[in-house]
Amino acid sequence: MAHAITPPRGMRDFLPAEKAARERALGIIRRSYTTHGFDEIETPVMEDIERLHSGLGGDNEKLSFSVLKRAIPTAAIEAAAAADDAQQLADLGLRFDLTVPLARFYASHRAELPAVFRAIQIAPVWRAERPQKGRYRQFVQCDIDIIGEPTLLAEAEIITATLATLDALGLENCTIRINDRRLLTAMLEVFGFAAAEHPQVLITVDKLDKIGQGGVVAELRERGATPAAVDALDAFFHRIQTREFNPFGVRAITKALPSGVDEALIADLASLADSVDPSKLQFDPFLVRGMGYYTGTIFEIAHPDFAFSLGGGGRYDGMIGRFLGTDVAACGFSIGFERIVDLLQAEDAGVTDALLLLHDSEASAAQLVGLKSQLVAAGTRVRLERRIKNTKAQLDRAAAGGYTSFAFVGAGTHSVEDLDVKAI
Amino acid sequence: MAHAITPPRGMRDFLPAEKAARERALGIIRRSYTTHGFDEIETPVMEDIERLHSGLGGDNEKLSFSVLKRAIPTAAIEAAAAADDAQQLADLGLRFDLTVPLARFYASHRAELPAVFRAIQIAPVWRAERPQKGRYRQFVQCDIDIIGEPTLLAEAEIITATLATLDALGLENCTIRINDRRLLTAMLEVFGFAAAEHPQVLITVDKLDKIGQGGVVAELRERGATPAAVDALDAFFHRIQTREFNPFGVRAITKALPSGVDEALIADLASLADSVDPSKLQFDPFLVRGMGYYTGTIFEIAHPDFAFSLGGGGRYDGMIGRFLGTDVAACGFSIGFERIVDLLQAEDAGVTDALLLLHDSEASAAQLVGLKSQLVAAGTRVRLERRIKNTKAQLDRAAAGGYTSFAFVGAGTHSVEDLDVKAI
Repeated sequence: MAHAITPPRGMRDFLPAEKAARERALGIIRRSYTTHGFDEIETPVMEDIERLHSGLGGDNEKLSFSVLKRAIPTAAIEAAAAADDAQQLADLGLRFDLTVPLARFYASHRAELPAVFRAIQIAPVWRAERPQKGRYRQFVQCDIDIIGEPTLLAEAEIITATLATLDALGLENCTIRINDRRLLTAMLEVFGFAAAEHPQVLITVDKLDKIGQGGVVAELRERGATPAAVDALDAFFHRIQTREFNPFGVRAITKALPSGVDEALIADLASLADSVDPSKLQFDPFLVRGMGYYTGTIFEIAHPDFAFSLGGGGRYDGMIGRFLGTDVAACGFSIGFERIVDLLQAEDAGVTDALLLLHDSEASAAQLVGLKSQLVAAGTRVRLERRIKNTKAQLDRAAAGGYTSFAFVGAGTHSVEDLDVKAI
Repeated sequence: MAHAITPPRGMRDFLPAEKAARERALGIIRRSYTTHGFDEIETPVMEDIERLHSGLGGDNEKLSFSVLKRAIPTAAIEAAAAADDAQQLADLGLRFDLTVPLARFYASHRAELPAVFRAIQIAPVWRAERPQKGRYRQFVQCDIDIIGEPTLLAEAEIITATLATLDALGLENCTIRINDRRLLTAMLEVFGFAAAEHPQVLITVDKLDKIGQGGVVAELRERGATPAAVDALDAFFHRIQTREFNPFGVRAITKALPSGVDEALIADLASLADSVDPSKLQFDPFLVRGMGYYTGTIFEIAHPDFAFSLGGGGRYDGMIGRFLGTDVAACGFSIGFERIVDLLQAEDAGVTDALLLLHDSEASAAQLVGLKSQLVAAGTRVRLERRIKNTKAQLDRAAAGGYTSFAFVGAGTHSVEDLDVKAI
């Protein structure tokens, strides 16, 4: 039993310093979103398996962890074997995102919620992905969603609140890359792609960052997309060699799109510049975002220092109402917490006074706990440690844990006044 | 799809007001224990199934949720059917407590931790219990543990920190009922129970609160316990009609036990009165606590207003080292978070300024988000809401969410100065 004691594959333990950094970041996010009028909710980590596999989760459904029923008769196992389907033995599953649970939550509690409901969800999700650097099987998502607001007021509030939260986390240089699914459709129509081709074409266009313009055109030809439409896209690619169109507004968006796209759609998106600092917005005509449920605006967080996005979201009006049986407007933004927490500078724990009390075996429990209680009552964070031979290593470790000073408690130390407190 | 949309059986959603109350309580607990020198850690919600079922979890192992392997060949399902054991198809399980994960964590990271490690764990656990009032299938545990401290200093620190935390939560009248497994054993020996009988006798004695002294004696007779020993216990019951022995110390403990119990053991436990306020301690000779892993002191939180305990713990020196293959001293205390959070007075959210901005459709997104951003920047929590006909109901709902004032934004409201702010 004494070897290979690790957490399950792709999952992590958090030691005190990491855990403290995570809790600090979560506290900042929670406070910021709360101040912006969002309300935190919580749902169980498990949902009924049929609900998790109802098609709202896209490819993530395939990555879900299923939970065995508690009492399973032999006949049921035999039936599962005959059907070659072990999933028959599961009745629950761990959530793979926070959106499916939000849809279920909203359907359960609509009558108790305001007409326009602003939700915060900060919680772990689970996906059985092949573990790799920066990709885990348990990770925290931070989502905000506005449910019931069909106008761009939702996008404006969500983007403003998210930018403010990133600021509060010390990530001041973030911008929001933005597009609209309807503009994507309009663009594909202008090029001449048939409606039935759109989903497949978008999957290829979504690879633009990875394979470049030439790669996109080549893949589309290979996949047999309408040749004239691919030619038109290719010509458009040659015309626009940049994805920087500034400042955000009607003019920049028009310039970034082929001519012929509905001007009302452009004006609608451009109006966001009235409520969000336009220097923080960047129109990106080729921003796609994977999930099929988006119906309008889509956005991602870009930071000049990182190639990857720090989060994303968009409008998904058809989905939240699925369990309710009626359409409900919805718009959400998810911060990539695991990426962001790695970027944050190791700050001090915000505790100014943290004292390590070193003692030997001559000091009694009564003496030690008495001193500690007095110090704690005065607002000091206190850790007792038996002094080891390598006191320097001991002090270094305490410093790494946020302890700023130390004192030695001997047989004669009876009151706080007797302590000779030194900085570490 | 439009009906019976509920969380899974025995699991709960938390609406904004409940979630806020829970987070407030968790924040208080986290701060208090951190100030007392404990460090928070986190482990994944799942552990390898063999580790969960290695005998450390007692009866809780039977209540665990198992997670299906991700790709299961037909032959494996057939083998499970032949063995009538669906558990063969699972490789992970959801933790049923925080102690087994702590033992695994300590074995994984011992080299990175201080010689005496003070851990905080605040996290959900899962048990497939029959749901009933106050008993859930997902619930939060708040544990502190001191690993590596063999003396009563651990008990003194843990009890002091827990009492301070209960104080901070507003539960000032808590006391700690305390006993020692070794005293229990000594007492049973004095009565004349054979060592082999002890576990079963303790199970019966543990029911004292429910079935009374007569019930305990009757059950022991029925179960065929050594008759002379049962007689001795019965006579002892007749002698002590109270479980109140004050003040905590050698004298009270001696009085509460049959004569003949080792005085050194009594003196050892009594010495806790030197480091913990004795008026907060209450010796209880019949406190048993269910889990088999306790090896020394055991304790529970009692509150005069409640018949049930608000938490408990004790010393379990043999267990933490199980995955390490060596014994490690350990002592822990678990607060019954779900019980405590229900008791806490609904306090205000600690935000003094929270403003509901009501608007109609004439106010533009730019106007609304602009006003909101100014107010948020000044430290005010702000929620935008379209005014509904029943404004009174709308204000009442906002007040329940912690909003203290409101203002109306019309077409002419362009700056914060234009707002006519009224108390709700």
